[in-house]
Amino acid sequence: MAEALRIGIAGLGTVGASVVGCMTDKEAELTRQCGRTMALTAVSARDRTRDRGIELGNAQWFDDPVELARSAEIDVFVELIGGDSGAAYDAVKAALEAGRHVVTANKALLSKHGVALAAIAEEKGVLLNYEAAVAGGIPVIKTMREALAGNEVSRVFGIMNGTANYILTRMEEEGLSFEDCLAEAQRLGYAEADPTFDIEGHDTAHKLSILTSLAFGCKISADDIYMEGISNISQADIRAASELGYRIKLLGVAVKTDSGIEQRVHPTMVPTHSVIAQVHGVTNAVAIETDVLGELLLSGPGAGGNATASAVIGDMADIAKSRPGFQHGPVFGRPAAKLKPYKRARMRSHEGGYFIRMTVHDRAGVFAAIAKRMADNEISLESIVQHADGGLPDEQKNVILVTHETTEAAVRKAVDGVMKDGHLVDKPQVIRIERAA
Amino acid sequence: MAEALRIGIAGLGTVGASVVGCMTDKEAELTRQCGRTMALTAVSARDRTRDRGIELGNAQWFDDPVELARSAEIDVFVELIGGDSGAAYDAVKAALEAGRHVVTANKALLSKHGVALAAIAEEKGVLLNYEAAVAGGIPVIKTMREALAGNEVSRVFGIMNGTANYILTRMEEEGLSFEDCLAEAQRLGYAEADPTFDIEGHDTAHKLSILTSLAFGCKISADDIYMEGISNISQADIRAASELGYRIKLLGVAVKTDSGIEQRVHPTMVPTHSVIAQVHGVTNAVAIETDVLGELLLSGPGAGGNATASAVIGDMADIAKSRPGFQHGPVFGRPAAKLKPYKRARMRSHEGGYFIRMTVHDRAGVFAAIAKRMADNEISLESIVQHADGGLPDEQKNVILVTHETTEAAVRKAVDGVMKDGHLVDKPQVIRIERAA
Repeated sequence: MAEALRIGIAGLGTVGASVVGCMTDKEAELTRQCGRTMALTAVSARDRTRDRGIELGNAQWFDDPVELARSAEIDVFVELIGGDSGAAYDAVKAALEAGRHVVTANKALLSKHGVALAAIAEEKGVLLNYEAAVAGGIPVIKTMREALAGNEVSRVFGIMNGTANYILTRMEEEGLSFEDCLAEAQRLGYAEADPTFDIEGHDTAHKLSILTSLAFGCKISADDIYMEGISNISQADIRAASELGYRIKLLGVAVKTDSGIEQRVHPTMVPTHSVIAQVHGVTNAVAIETDVLGELLLSGPGAGGNATASAVIGDMADIAKSRPGFQHGPVFGRPAAKLKPYKRARMRSHEGGYFIRMTVHDRAGVFAAIAKRMADNEISLESIVQHADGGLPDEQKNVILVTHETTEAAVRKAVDGVMKDGHLVDKPQVIRIERAA
Repeated sequence: MAEALRIGIAGLGTVGASVVGCMTDKEAELTRQCGRTMALTAVSARDRTRDRGIELGNAQWFDDPVELARSAEIDVFVELIGGDSGAAYDAVKAALEAGRHVVTANKALLSKHGVALAAIAEEKGVLLNYEAAVAGGIPVIKTMREALAGNEVSRVFGIMNGTANYILTRMEEEGLSFEDCLAEAQRLGYAEADPTFDIEGHDTAHKLSILTSLAFGCKISADDIYMEGISNISQADIRAASELGYRIKLLGVAVKTDSGIEQRVHPTMVPTHSVIAQVHGVTNAVAIETDVLGELLLSGPGAGGNATASAVIGDMADIAKSRPGFQHGPVFGRPAAKLKPYKRARMRSHEGGYFIRMTVHDRAGVFAAIAKRMADNEISLESIVQHADGGLPDEQKNVILVTHETTEAAVRKAVDGVMKDGHLVDKPQVIRIERAA
């Protein structure tokens, strides 16, 4: 049997502890699958004394993860520190430069420095694996990087934040407000004390930026992502969506268009009977649309120690199965030097259907005025309904429009027009509709 | 750049033509991804003169696929002939023995000879890739063989036959009979003139047998699969299922139980709101339940030239990315010599919920008699309803039971008892319920 693969892990939080636990519990099976053992030879974490309930064996302790990354006693550096710079960045860079394979779960780091790190990995002929960085245990990186070779991707989209999906699911199931569901998610540990990162779309954007690069062979550009969070989704939206055959999900979407690449994260209407609409709670899902294969959807646990550890272990096993002399495919599907510049499509050019909910003063001529504004902007309507909503005073009504395919620019202009007409009680709610199988 | 990977393809039907077309159309991108070109150097098919609308370039023509398999001018032998023996078997065996990598889409071949062929591949240190053999373009083999390293699978199940799923979908959507939907599927080319293989579960069983081996590290045993087809599913079943919150799907299911492994293919009730229940038409889906990750579901196109070609190209690209000296993981997850013997669980020991539909003579005491037979066999009922069904004469009624978890043995005994009581108009319909997220 080949020599053991020597693993160094930096970061022993929930995920790190799960990885170490899994390496111990599954040692025999992993050895059978990989043809050699994976040996934990070194670790690094902040607190040396904490009891993590795991067996660290004879692993050497490093206070400095960068020192661990450079150690000659490891073949693979597993980065589970987190953060887009600082120790995580320094250590991953050092490991790659020292010719160590790297496994990381760090979406923020890759979103910011992925291309530069890929260039080092490719130059050194080592692997940079990051399955756990997007959608937890769902093997979307492996699928896009390996299984879909030869496929040209036209669109990739998904539910990539469990916190936001949990909140939307509970709002729909229980009829509770966003605030109540957020509080519940915080109580259950699904949401942070400061939930901004999850509910405003930043976390999804990081993950999306990585998938965009893999999908379209372009550089990662997380700063160019259009972002709207879910904090202004109301029960009125959820109910109206449901009656019209839609469900609201926080999606990250990347699409190739004639004018460039759209990257957007926003609450989205998906058809109630689509597969992705059934993805509830903290579960994640990613759909990939390609020319050869068609549409593929993967769903599963998107976060949590074990789900993330599963992806990390899979990445480690891929390295264990490789042998000296083996050269894997490029980190982001095509060599870092050949990744195309990212060309951003203007959000105003976005084409699609729209759901528009307006609370109006209930008086004659409102419908006509709204319909005229839409017609003036060449927006054709699939439906315009007055929505019975218990929460409104008698003299106010909800009017819901669903448009056929139109452009973002047209919708913005039409909505501005309606607002100027003075019939609206407050700001209208505009939610994009996404095709989904 | 490394030398070109020389590809020989045997079988130029729909899939073969798609593979060749894709290799031509995507040459530049595949080369970028793999770091070397894939060159079509040899082909074999029955009819040399047929116009397939593809570019065969300078590929050498072989009348005999076995001769092609042994040719020193290829590195990879792609078998797209089909059939579980004859030319396909001879050629794949010859290729492996000659030290060529093999890519195949042939589920029947692997189902019958997979372990023996894997042993040769592993001895020769070559790859035997077969992503296209199960669920077409869905990367379930890659996921189970690579991504889920270290995960212990407890259950794998899925919709793996597009013909059967198309028929069930149309029956539900259109309220048509099985026969009408089959005829439609035949007209559209989704079903063969002799549809037995698809609708009676044989095709699903072949695919399931391969997943079972990957899931549980055991030898392939396709002859040990319990099988029921969908030809006796009626509109009465579909309607009753719908009213009770279920949808009927032809599933292949493999589960590890205390007494062995259950492998079964049969019409199955899945909750209407589960993800797998939304998998419609010819689409396939596979769900994998593991200890570390939890439940993963993959859905996508399960058949057709392009979907299958996508998987074949992915397999070829994995070989192109590997280099001499590289040794991949074992063909069925663990080395062929270490695959455990398959231990069949008895179907009578199956545990789960059941849907039982009985057409009864409408007279006093029928409900009581049925309920007693259930109670006598310790079957606890979730519901027992008299189902309004338009198609029945006045003096007959449909009675639908949904049981809590019980055993197959208990259900068979109880149903036999009810039949003996003489209240039934005809044979009861018994459909197993499967948990699904």
